[in-house]
Amino acid sequence: MKNEELISRLHDDNIDSMFVYKPENIKYISDFYPTSFAYLIVQDEPILYVNSIDKEDAQELSQVETRDIVKLSEVKDELSGSIAVENSLDFQFTKFLTDDLNNIQTSTVLEDLRKTKTKDEITKIKNSIGIAENAIGEIDFTSTEKYAAATLEFDMTINGSIKPAFDTIVASGKRSSSPHSVTSMNGVETPIVVDWGAKYDHYCSDITRTFIDSERQQEIWNIVLEAQRAAINTIAPGVEISDVDKAARDVITEYGYGEYFIHSTGHGFGLDIHEDPNVSQNSEGVLEENMVITAEPGIYIPGEFGVRIEDDILVKRNPEVLTSLDKQLDFLL
Amino acid sequence: MKNEELISRLHDDNIDSMFVYKPENIKYISDFYPTSFAYLIVQDEPILYVNSIDKEDAQELSQVETRDIVKLSEVKDELSGSIAVENSLDFQFTKFLTDDLNNIQTSTVLEDLRKTKTKDEITKIKNSIGIAENAIGEIDFTSTEKYAAATLEFDMTINGSIKPAFDTIVASGKRSSSPHSVTSMNGVETPIVVDWGAKYDHYCSDITRTFIDSERQQEIWNIVLEAQRAAINTIAPGVEISDVDKAARDVITEYGYGEYFIHSTGHGFGLDIHEDPNVSQNSEGVLEENMVITAEPGIYIPGEFGVRIEDDILVKRNPEVLTSLDKQLDFLL
Repeated sequence: MKNEELISRLHDDNIDSMFVYKPENIKYISDFYPTSFAYLIVQDEPILYVNSIDKEDAQELSQVETRDIVKLSEVKDELSGSIAVENSLDFQFTKFLTDDLNNIQTSTVLEDLRKTKTKDEITKIKNSIGIAENAIGEIDFTSTEKYAAATLEFDMTINGSIKPAFDTIVASGKRSSSPHSVTSMNGVETPIVVDWGAKYDHYCSDITRTFIDSERQQEIWNIVLEAQRAAINTIAPGVEISDVDKAARDVITEYGYGEYFIHSTGHGFGLDIHEDPNVSQNSEGVLEENMVITAEPGIYIPGEFGVRIEDDILVKRNPEVLTSLDKQLDFLL
Repeated sequence: MKNEELISRLHDDNIDSMFVYKPENIKYISDFYPTSFAYLIVQDEPILYVNSIDKEDAQELSQVETRDIVKLSEVKDELSGSIAVENSLDFQFTKFLTDDLNNIQTSTVLEDLRKTKTKDEITKIKNSIGIAENAIGEIDFTSTEKYAAATLEFDMTINGSIKPAFDTIVASGKRSSSPHSVTSMNGVETPIVVDWGAKYDHYCSDITRTFIDSERQQEIWNIVLEAQRAAINTIAPGVEISDVDKAARDVITEYGYGEYFIHSTGHGFGLDIHEDPNVSQNSEGVLEENMVITAEPGIYIPGEFGVRIEDDILVKRNPEVLTSLDKQLDFLL
């Protein structure tokens, strides 16, 4: 009904297809709220394109056809007729300021500058990490995943976090096999992946620990830890960023789990939880002194469980691991 | 230092001024994080333009000159030379999809559709309101504002809220005189403005109550309540939206507090906390059946305190006030 109305209004406006990528608009049309970049093309048969991270959930929940995300150039080639994009403040603002949009300059100078952190910024990130690390001691696993997340967030808030740096993930049992699992009202099972961060004066922290309790889980956990150590050991100014990803990926691949490491090894963060540089196979460029990045390899075995270990590293000649939490915290179980 | 580097890099790129409006970028440059729409122009002497709601805090905290926000057309006229805007995904995405940006269609059809809610959406909003209303009984005012906010958010989370619909406001004592006061680590004083909401399946709720404990506060509170009732009484399909604002504003003005009602009377909400229609003096158009809007007049006496009362209303021939919480909850103090 809702979508028929939408399509009929687009026809009235002589629009053949419309691109939508704000998560709220995607939810409105498909009833699925993406946790990662996704886009939806509204046409006579709307199609939702999602990242591998969202695939399982989207297939279950989306009311419109779901496909694997493809490069924009491939989608563009498929389209004909009159295309529209959803309205955005950014676009309207830009349009207003410049008479000729094709000649507009968009400058990435701020993203470039923000890649490396000042002393003051590093101090704030350290404070943010401190708040997050202290809070894990207060987590309560005796009820639902949501309850566990709430106990953690409560402790961060009362100790000076403005708000969580992102939606806290408590993904337990089979739900841990998705890296972006939505924290549920189900009771906590094992293993438990907890991915959390604080915001101190708007600066983020980002940590993951996996609480394990079987030999099989320990085996996977050991591989992930080895991969993370390999990645951290490569970190230094001047190193190709893709080599950091490769170091972790090679370890996991050697053990035969390469296909289950379905995201990149890390990312920069600061005022935003995701900043440049992204640390992936395809990353270009080299690490620079005073970048702050995560190192967070993971193995996600479909239908079984997942393991991820994430720490925050300051790039220096002698890289500084800013997180100081034990890797294994299973005594909290 | 940081800003000198920024300006020098813009010079290198032959950019005379750069427009910035992402709050994280504004924080990076000015050290002030705006709570409302603001923009900053980076030039040899950067200038931050903020809303009246942010003015006091910005003047105290911003490291760059702060001015009252003006219409973009006025700023534009002042600028000469080569202008750039900060990079945004929206803009890049749009640019990629369309060969000729000047001919691009941006469609507001989704915003238009989302203004009126479906039955299913109304149910979700009601659930979100229920979670928020129940939580206020659990608020703990015995420690800091942050602690009070954390107790409220904890209860919403364990009862099924994905996350707070927006940063919970607990603004007490003198801090209540700013409508967007940032919840502090100071101890709770009186009066206490609490503005909070849940997210149920991504649908928001939005409620404010003010806890008062003096005759002077009661006097102001009575005026705000009368203004809110006047606004709610005008709500019906076909009514000019600006008349809803006028109804509340007239009451407050009659009592001599017009200049202290420094925001609009309400706004639509749903998947986003701010959706069309905005309910202000300048709003155009009429209310439609199944819009869901807030009614939230307030009086903010600088240096003294502020009072706001906010409820959520479903527009119907007989408008339905979806919130059922008592207006006065001072027994919780």
